[in-house]
Amino acid sequence: MNPYTRILSFLAGVCLYSLPVAAQSGYRLWLDFKSLPTETADGYKQRLTALLFPVANQTDSIAKQELLTALDGLLGQRPTSVDTPQKTGTLIVGTPATLPWLAGEAIGEHLDHMGEEGYGIHSTTINGSPATVILANTSKGVLYGAYAFLGLLQGGEDITQVAITTRPKVTLRLLNHWDNLDRTVERGYAGFSLWDWHRLPGYRDPRYTDYARANASIGINGTVLNNVNANALMLTAPYLEKAAALADIFRPYGIKVYLSARFSAPIELGGLADADPLNPKVQQWWNEKVAEIYRYIPDFGGFLVKANSEGQPGPQNYGRSHADGANMLADALEPHNGVVMWRAFVYDDKEPDDRAKQAYNEFKPLDGQFRGNVIVQVKNGAIDFQPREPFHPLFGAMPQTPLMMEFQITQEYLGFATNLAYLGTLFSETLQADTYADGPQSTVARVVDGSLTGQSLTAIAGVANTGTATNWTGHPFAQANWFAYGQLAWDPEADAATIAEDWLRRTFGNDASLIGALLPLMMQSREAVVNYMTPLGLHHLMGWSHHYGPGPWIKDKQRADWTSVYYHQADKDGIGFDRTASGSNALGQYTPEVRKRFEDPQTCPDEYLLWFHHLPWDFRMKSGETLWETLCGHYYGGVAEVAGMQAVWEAQRGKVDSTVFQEVSDLLAVQHEEAILWRDACVLYFQQFSGMPIPEGLEQPAHPLEYYEHLQFHFVPGI
Amino acid sequence: MNPYTRILSFLAGVCLYSLPVAAQSGYRLWLDFKSLPTETADGYKQRLTALLFPVANQTDSIAKQELLTALDGLLGQRPTSVDTPQKTGTLIVGTPATLPWLAGEAIGEHLDHMGEEGYGIHSTTINGSPATVILANTSKGVLYGAYAFLGLLQGGEDITQVAITTRPKVTLRLLNHWDNLDRTVERGYAGFSLWDWHRLPGYRDPRYTDYARANASIGINGTVLNNVNANALMLTAPYLEKAAALADIFRPYGIKVYLSARFSAPIELGGLADADPLNPKVQQWWNEKVAEIYRYIPDFGGFLVKANSEGQPGPQNYGRSHADGANMLADALEPHNGVVMWRAFVYDDKEPDDRAKQAYNEFKPLDGQFRGNVIVQVKNGAIDFQPREPFHPLFGAMPQTPLMMEFQITQEYLGFATNLAYLGTLFSETLQADTYADGPQSTVARVVDGSLTGQSLTAIAGVANTGTATNWTGHPFAQANWFAYGQLAWDPEADAATIAEDWLRRTFGNDASLIGALLPLMMQSREAVVNYMTPLGLHHLMGWSHHYGPGPWIKDKQRADWTSVYYHQADKDGIGFDRTASGSNALGQYTPEVRKRFEDPQTCPDEYLLWFHHLPWDFRMKSGETLWETLCGHYYGGVAEVAGMQAVWEAQRGKVDSTVFQEVSDLLAVQHEEAILWRDACVLYFQQFSGMPIPEGLEQPAHPLEYYEHLQFHFVPGI
Repeated sequence: MNPYTRILSFLAGVCLYSLPVAAQSGYRLWLDFKSLPTETADGYKQRLTALLFPVANQTDSIAKQELLTALDGLLGQRPTSVDTPQKTGTLIVGTPATLPWLAGEAIGEHLDHMGEEGYGIHSTTINGSPATVILANTSKGVLYGAYAFLGLLQGGEDITQVAITTRPKVTLRLLNHWDNLDRTVERGYAGFSLWDWHRLPGYRDPRYTDYARANASIGINGTVLNNVNANALMLTAPYLEKAAALADIFRPYGIKVYLSARFSAPIELGGLADADPLNPKVQQWWNEKVAEIYRYIPDFGGFLVKANSEGQPGPQNYGRSHADGANMLADALEPHNGVVMWRAFVYDDKEPDDRAKQAYNEFKPLDGQFRGNVIVQVKNGAIDFQPREPFHPLFGAMPQTPLMMEFQITQEYLGFATNLAYLGTLFSETLQADTYADGPQSTVARVVDGSLTGQSLTAIAGVANTGTATNWTGHPFAQANWFAYGQLAWDPEADAATIAEDWLRRTFGNDASLIGALLPLMMQSREAVVNYMTPLGLHHLMGWSHHYGPGPWIKDKQRADWTSVYYHQADKDGIGFDRTASGSNALGQYTPEVRKRFEDPQTCPDEYLLWFHHLPWDFRMKSGETLWETLCGHYYGGVAEVAGMQAVWEAQRGKVDSTVFQEVSDLLAVQHEEAILWRDACVLYFQQFSGMPIPEGLEQPAHPLEYYEHLQFHFVPGI
Repeated sequence: MNPYTRILSFLAGVCLYSLPVAAQSGYRLWLDFKSLPTETADGYKQRLTALLFPVANQTDSIAKQELLTALDGLLGQRPTSVDTPQKTGTLIVGTPATLPWLAGEAIGEHLDHMGEEGYGIHSTTINGSPATVILANTSKGVLYGAYAFLGLLQGGEDITQVAITTRPKVTLRLLNHWDNLDRTVERGYAGFSLWDWHRLPGYRDPRYTDYARANASIGINGTVLNNVNANALMLTAPYLEKAAALADIFRPYGIKVYLSARFSAPIELGGLADADPLNPKVQQWWNEKVAEIYRYIPDFGGFLVKANSEGQPGPQNYGRSHADGANMLADALEPHNGVVMWRAFVYDDKEPDDRAKQAYNEFKPLDGQFRGNVIVQVKNGAIDFQPREPFHPLFGAMPQTPLMMEFQITQEYLGFATNLAYLGTLFSETLQADTYADGPQSTVARVVDGSLTGQSLTAIAGVANTGTATNWTGHPFAQANWFAYGQLAWDPEADAATIAEDWLRRTFGNDASLIGALLPLMMQSREAVVNYMTPLGLHHLMGWSHHYGPGPWIKDKQRADWTSVYYHQADKDGIGFDRTASGSNALGQYTPEVRKRFEDPQTCPDEYLLWFHHLPWDFRMKSGETLWETLCGHYYGGVAEVAGMQAVWEAQRGKVDSTVFQEVSDLLAVQHEEAILWRDACVLYFQQFSGMPIPEGLEQPAHPLEYYEHLQFHFVPGI
């Protein structure tokens, strides 16, 4: 073989070796304004040759810069900045203050429907020339409108006939960061806390700006910086100064800073003997502390409080009620227009007969006793962010109290940052649930947006899934959950599939075959997790403390309601938690219409069957199968669904960035392994009670039950 | 005012608001191949129209892809891939295996001088046509050559007459990661560990590839993944599988994986009764463990061991010597060609009369007793990575033993990741120090590169300053320390200023005025830190445990040699540690020539004065000033130098990326505050002993000494 032949043979053999130079994959989220296909771009260019955008403040400046930079990226054309509408297509952006002449145009009428934060995007004609107008009553609305407009372009939407007028249905749209001051993140799976407290306030990491930008682009307008399991140090001057530096960075993006307050701070910081909310000295301490905070952060949003829950101090330590505690803080905040978000996720000292009933039992009697600036923050379900829970019975049950929703965006119980689980469907499922509190159509969404009971103070919170990971969320698809949360916070009635498609287009582009493949994958992904983790209404089966992997065998801990056996109740006779009148009667906390939907095991939807009922293993399902067969079918089906997701993803090779493609491939392979682990551990564990065989045709688990029970995982993140 | 006028006035007022859309600043390090100025690019284009680069393996593929991508970025021209040299300028890249015909050309002669890892870059003529040739004996050399060539272009070098032939003077060029399995990093100030152990081996974070790439680009060929304060779990199968996944990613970049081994692992993992290195069962356990490691990682590099130091277990627990311990591991590794790096940073159970003498006292007698695959890893100085230390007395003192250098790239004692301190000067200062072990020119560099005593096994380690920070190192200029470490590992004789300039050009471009301003800033930066922290040979004055900020008052701890007063010895009579024959005689550990340089306070260089001497406050310095006046002068001068750095940086506004500009501005302001803190605390502390006034014209500290003594810092990173 001569040298050249040899080289050629080398060359032939090394196609496999071709590697991309890895990039900072995913850092730009849905805001990576790469060039659109020529055909699409050409369609936009002529309508966007000029930009008329008078800048009145820093928020305007950001919006303008975003438009200029993004249009350059998307179209390869930077519009000319002009002072008057041009003959060719002008993009006109502003408010009645910066574009007073527009109020006289027909388009100005839409302003009445935009409120403080909404915006309009309209194709129109100004002086006979085509124009696209982004209009809002405030600069914040303009900023939201600018991002929305860019989203339309990313999605390839026709902008010659746009007519969008929108305003958020929920006033406070927050992220909750469970970030500790040492930068660990409780239930964080995307690295560590974004807040580099040690180097604040002096060093303003550019990532803070990018964080604010990402949130503004999806309408989030507040952020609670620190963990609800709060350290009182957060309220000391050095940390307030650090928080103020963040607030300064976030402010032009329309984002307010909130803090989790430790209820016992008057003792720990103030040297007081107690933290009794009726003690005038305690009240005085909080009044002064709040005044101090507002000196650092003039537009401080308020406090989030976890009290008398999982060991946190609270008013009950002094024989006072949650309302006493919340109102004391509310009184301190009221002169500054701050709010108190008081969590309903509470624990009694005693082990309850049914943990699911606790929040309702404690808070329902307090309805009407809270100050006007208190909002009770309620998790979507009564247990704890499980893969599926029925909606929390408090929704609709406290008509005189603003109730806000707490969703968990971070996937504590849905596979951390390795499992692809689009949560738009989970969020929507809860929001669309009907409480029947005021007849049909009394959806949870209408409780949250205040329309059901006429509440004007409305709010929603999502426990953030962000961290130091280059792509922010650890899993590329977990970005979609941050995105979906923002969209649903703006409009709780929004459609989860539409949001998913929007995210896909903004993230991966407009390839029809890719969207056609990935949209169903996303929409089914959370159900797959439910199937291989907690099907048929099962819940709380996860590993001890770190919550990683299966742990249906968890028992004999300090509290029964922290164990798995408490929840699944599996024994020789059957499985499931009887929450009907014959059991804990948690179902009695719901309206009669809801009760009726769930109380009969023959008609209760399969999804919630074992949440509400304890049933024999040979219970006959609607399908005709036994409960045991159906249970196995879900576990095995969930694993098969993940294999299906792998196949769908593999077919996208070449259609997405090769680095992201490989990341998702890796993660789906991990997810498949974890799904098998869940399936095998749970099926074997429950089989010892059912005594029934794994249905024919399904492969046997690779190991005996003991193997799974003895698996140890070290240094699991998030605790 | 009519509406338009109002808008115009708005516009005029808001220039201040113009913000950049923040980018992922600094992620690309010195490898951000942005377009060169047209004039420079045009000069290169015609010599680089074609690329002849036969690809034989994955390393070649990486090098080729890097060249294609970078040339596209730098020149806006992607060379055509060709099979034979072209008439126009061809870039020819390969090895004798892939370009056998080149061996016959004159240029092939250089191969003899390149060794296994070196490369040549030559402008030449092939068949009468101009060509640029990157040649090496191995693909690894080719990769190094490709990066070096791109560095030439970034620096605007003339490539029509390049004639470079180089090979590394040190064989093993390692990073030491003090990374714990929970992702905290001991003495890490750039976020958290890059290794996402929980998601390994399945999820291969793209950042691992970027890490390997960055290291390969500066010639680093090994990495110790875990902290020297080691957890035995690292040696268990699940973690070995994770380490193997990293090794697979690093391998094509020429980087081997090493692990820190916990000496007591046979007890903790193996269930043995002891870890006595002479116990056959212990030896057997290590033999099997090492064989197991090599099954996971066939090219595993070996172990790094911290034993009998700061509470770590070691052979002395069983009455054995460091040589006994190291040799046992060496015997286990030897069949697999692995090495043991045994750290000389050791502690006695007893408090020594002078901590500086400990390593020498323990290791010098062991010279000649180590196996051939043991390297003793010695810190640059005898205390602990202080802002300035004289070179470690072990260098030159163990002629029969390979000694490797341990530098600290992370700035444990030089201001963490907020202080700009270019460490090339620190590293060089030690490497250029003359031990006189074999007459003049017996530099530390020649100990490290093996030339002084004919050692063939040579190595160097740098404690990494990398982390999850977007820019890898926390401070944009700390990237220069990673870069400089790599360059000095390749050639310990390299010039620190040349390296700094190279880094500046690759990072910020070739603006002459910028280089002219920033190069002196970098070169003086470490001296500024010395001045405001530990001037005149003072050392170990930092805060307790976290090592943040000043703590000259630290005393009464469990060991005297962990306190500050042990080291500075300040009292009414004077200050400094007498290490001459009248004191601890640590100076006696050096050769007579070195002793002579330091033993007389009248001639001892100021930089080391109080390292070796205890002197009265009114000691007359060479300058004529008193010691006290000079000490104050250094502290105040250091702060002034930082102010000077701020001014120099401010003058670069507009010349560097605006995001990075703001980051460095922020950090210099923090550094200025910290410098004042150090100055005021130290001057006030020492003043209580000197009883002398702060020299006229210098501003008084803002607070009394007690203020500084009572400052508390919470959640300081790195511990």
